[in-house]
Amino acid sequence: MFNKTEENAVRYRRAQSVTKAEEITEKEKKARKSQLDKPCHKPRDSLFSWSSEFTNFTGLVNWGFLMLTIGGLRLCLENFLKYGIRVNPFEWFIVLTGHNEGYSHQYPSVILLIFSVVPAVTCLLIEKAIAVEILSQKLGVSLQIINMVSEISLPVIILYFKGTQFSFVGITTVCTIYLVLFLKLWSYCQTNHWCRLGMKGKQYKNTLRRQSLSAPNWKTLEDEKHDFVSAGLVKYPDNLTLKDLFYFLLAPTLCYELNFPRTTRIRKRFLIKRIIEVVFGVNLVMALFQQWMIPSVRNAVDPFSEMGIVKMTERLLKLAVPNHLIWLCFFYLSFHSFLNLMGELLHFADRNFYSDWWNANNISVFWSSWNMPVHLWAVRHVYIPMTEIGYTKGSASIVVFFISAFFHEYLVSVPLQMFRVWAFLGMMAQPPLSVISRVVEKKLGARWGNIIVWSSLILGQPLAIMMYYHDYALAHFAPQQ
Amino acid sequence: MFNKTEENAVRYRRAQSVTKAEEITEKEKKARKSQLDKPCHKPRDSLFSWSSEFTNFTGLVNWGFLMLTIGGLRLCLENFLKYGIRVNPFEWFIVLTGHNEGYSHQYPSVILLIFSVVPAVTCLLIEKAIAVEILSQKLGVSLQIINMVSEISLPVIILYFKGTQFSFVGITTVCTIYLVLFLKLWSYCQTNHWCRLGMKGKQYKNTLRRQSLSAPNWKTLEDEKHDFVSAGLVKYPDNLTLKDLFYFLLAPTLCYELNFPRTTRIRKRFLIKRIIEVVFGVNLVMALFQQWMIPSVRNAVDPFSEMGIVKMTERLLKLAVPNHLIWLCFFYLSFHSFLNLMGELLHFADRNFYSDWWNANNISVFWSSWNMPVHLWAVRHVYIPMTEIGYTKGSASIVVFFISAFFHEYLVSVPLQMFRVWAFLGMMAQPPLSVISRVVEKKLGARWGNIIVWSSLILGQPLAIMMYYHDYALAHFAPQQ
Repeated sequence: MFNKTEENAVRYRRAQSVTKAEEITEKEKKARKSQLDKPCHKPRDSLFSWSSEFTNFTGLVNWGFLMLTIGGLRLCLENFLKYGIRVNPFEWFIVLTGHNEGYSHQYPSVILLIFSVVPAVTCLLIEKAIAVEILSQKLGVSLQIINMVSEISLPVIILYFKGTQFSFVGITTVCTIYLVLFLKLWSYCQTNHWCRLGMKGKQYKNTLRRQSLSAPNWKTLEDEKHDFVSAGLVKYPDNLTLKDLFYFLLAPTLCYELNFPRTTRIRKRFLIKRIIEVVFGVNLVMALFQQWMIPSVRNAVDPFSEMGIVKMTERLLKLAVPNHLIWLCFFYLSFHSFLNLMGELLHFADRNFYSDWWNANNISVFWSSWNMPVHLWAVRHVYIPMTEIGYTKGSASIVVFFISAFFHEYLVSVPLQMFRVWAFLGMMAQPPLSVISRVVEKKLGARWGNIIVWSSLILGQPLAIMMYYHDYALAHFAPQQ
Repeated sequence: MFNKTEENAVRYRRAQSVTKAEEITEKEKKARKSQLDKPCHKPRDSLFSWSSEFTNFTGLVNWGFLMLTIGGLRLCLENFLKYGIRVNPFEWFIVLTGHNEGYSHQYPSVILLIFSVVPAVTCLLIEKAIAVEILSQKLGVSLQIINMVSEISLPVIILYFKGTQFSFVGITTVCTIYLVLFLKLWSYCQTNHWCRLGMKGKQYKNTLRRQSLSAPNWKTLEDEKHDFVSAGLVKYPDNLTLKDLFYFLLAPTLCYELNFPRTTRIRKRFLIKRIIEVVFGVNLVMALFQQWMIPSVRNAVDPFSEMGIVKMTERLLKLAVPNHLIWLCFFYLSFHSFLNLMGELLHFADRNFYSDWWNANNISVFWSSWNMPVHLWAVRHVYIPMTEIGYTKGSASIVVFFISAFFHEYLVSVPLQMFRVWAFLGMMAQPPLSVISRVVEKKLGARWGNIIVWSSLILGQPLAIMMYYHDYALAHFAPQQ
């Protein structure tokens, strides 16, 4: 046995010579091997220590989704225990047809929907009249503008006089359809206008060419038409038919063109899947709405008018979850299932109805990728034409933005019959949010930019809904003073 | 203008010749370019369609974690609104010291904790007596076994006679410490036993060698000791000191060896971080317990005794979330913060307290990676010795498993003073679950194996807790009939 001081001296020497914990001398290793106590420890760091440089946490992604599933399942059960089963498809049927509260047997929403054919046909007639030169270019365009403005104003006017005969869902549907029709007619008129201008330009050039005879391979208009026909393409003004117009009105796009890309056949399995999705999805959204959304919104209005900040936040977060899920269902249902269904039925080949907005790293990217038909329309019919006639890109963006904000307000305020500015303000909050998300993206990386996008989506909508419902409840249910 | 039938014929020809939607002929492309209507559509699939082959959904991971955060935040607010602030550190102090319900001023838990020194010192004295051959090997080992059995039985016996003087937390702490001490003493005795056996073997070999003189580079025991000393290593029986024993008892490991790997210095920043984590973490766990766990468990017992399946599931899921979060906090706190703190203070270099169990793809991997000190102990002191004396690997695993199940039951049943089998059954459910998770891993891939592991972790614990609380409440609060 060697004595204590010697042992300590050895320990001290080791402590001096070994700079890293892992550095065991060769001699020590050899000595350890000959030890009888079966050593099982070796110097190493814990995985959570930075020095371990361990970074594999893929299991936590599974954990996250499992916790979400469990949370969602519990919310469902809690909801059923609290409210019972509130889903009632028959009630929805009444709400949807506008057959509301025994007021009327006239189904005003349905009548308005059918009436939407009139402005469409009027638009075609005016175009035809311009094409065959019954109307002058100027007068025709003015008539088209009058037609479109009266088309978009119609629901507002009818609602003003006969508001009590409409259900909320009925008038929302009418407003949506009338707005879509407005955008489509705008595109239709503008595209036809481009064709007329272009043909005049060509005729003029042709005349010049024919006079000079210097161009070696000039084409007459007749030659060009032959090319088109052999490629199966329609040329202005042959497109001005009722069939062509209705194809465009039904097609899943807002941008008119004379020759849409077409598919050669209807894929039956694809079609059946989309039909099932639409049928199932509509019921799912309605069920979620009745079972989850309406009770949450009703619960929300009390604390909101009392304005307790904690209770308010709790209600907002509670509302955020069903609202967001319904929005996701609605998105998939409208933009994937329904538009693809229409596309398949109509042999319409361009299915670019949405881009990958779920990966958007800032809010501008989100807005230009979640609703491609509107985005495409805004770029083709507002942004590019404005920049071509000399406006800057910035001012063109702002105009696109204001038009978008106006239509959001139209879709919310008209059905609610409350001209509040919450939806408009919500849209107006997007440019500063966009700047913030860009800064975040640059400073903290793409992941945090994406998180900002999702947050604004998850929290912004229920905030606006609560604002509207609060005002709506105040206007309709407040005690008379 | 060409007539209608011609146009149709062209369309028909196109439909015949083009097999894929994307296949636009060169001629058509050329014709399209010369079109005046600014075409903006091209044939393409929606991103959600299988045919698009789009797979980038990384944004959804951010979405998942954001939804979790929002859900968690809402749960917190709801909890505060429902129960008010229940966190009361003073109450915890009373509970922890065993100064419970005004029964006693004797702090029985603290006395028992201090008394734990006695079996430890007894163990050292017996080892010393064997080493200097006052006691025979056989008698010594028997005495050690008696010492250890009485050590582990002590809390049970005390509790049987003086049960009312203990708080639940106090007795749980006592049981945990006594169990850890038991495992450490087992390791201490067995390791010293190996050393004795090994030295006898070496002495015998040495004698043989000295007699034969044939081995060219044989070493005397003195030579070997010299090697050890120059490497700074302690050799049996020099290790049998009070200082060495207490170092082992405090060190963050259950496996004794004569020369633990050591660090050369205490990293101050590391130490401060761990101290802050321990102080903050203990308070966090206590706060979560008082604020979230206790109300949930109390709420759970009613529906559980009435056994309504929907309500029961809802309560189980509700309990699962706080229980799981507390378990995660507890894990980090104990296995990272506390054990690293002890390791740093004691210059103990092996910080392998946990492996990456969060990535475990089946339940066996989880059990062998979440608690490395116990895993290492079981392998070194039960599994390997058993296989060495001829048992099969299978039977050695089963024995390890039963010992583990027994100690789980010990840690739960003794403090609750209820000898139910729920914890034992929970452990017994692990081998079949392990088989299931292996099958799932093979059939559905690693991700689903990992999900099974997490599910059993998130749902299994609250199920056992509810079982125990149910029985506990029945025994203590049930109306007398």
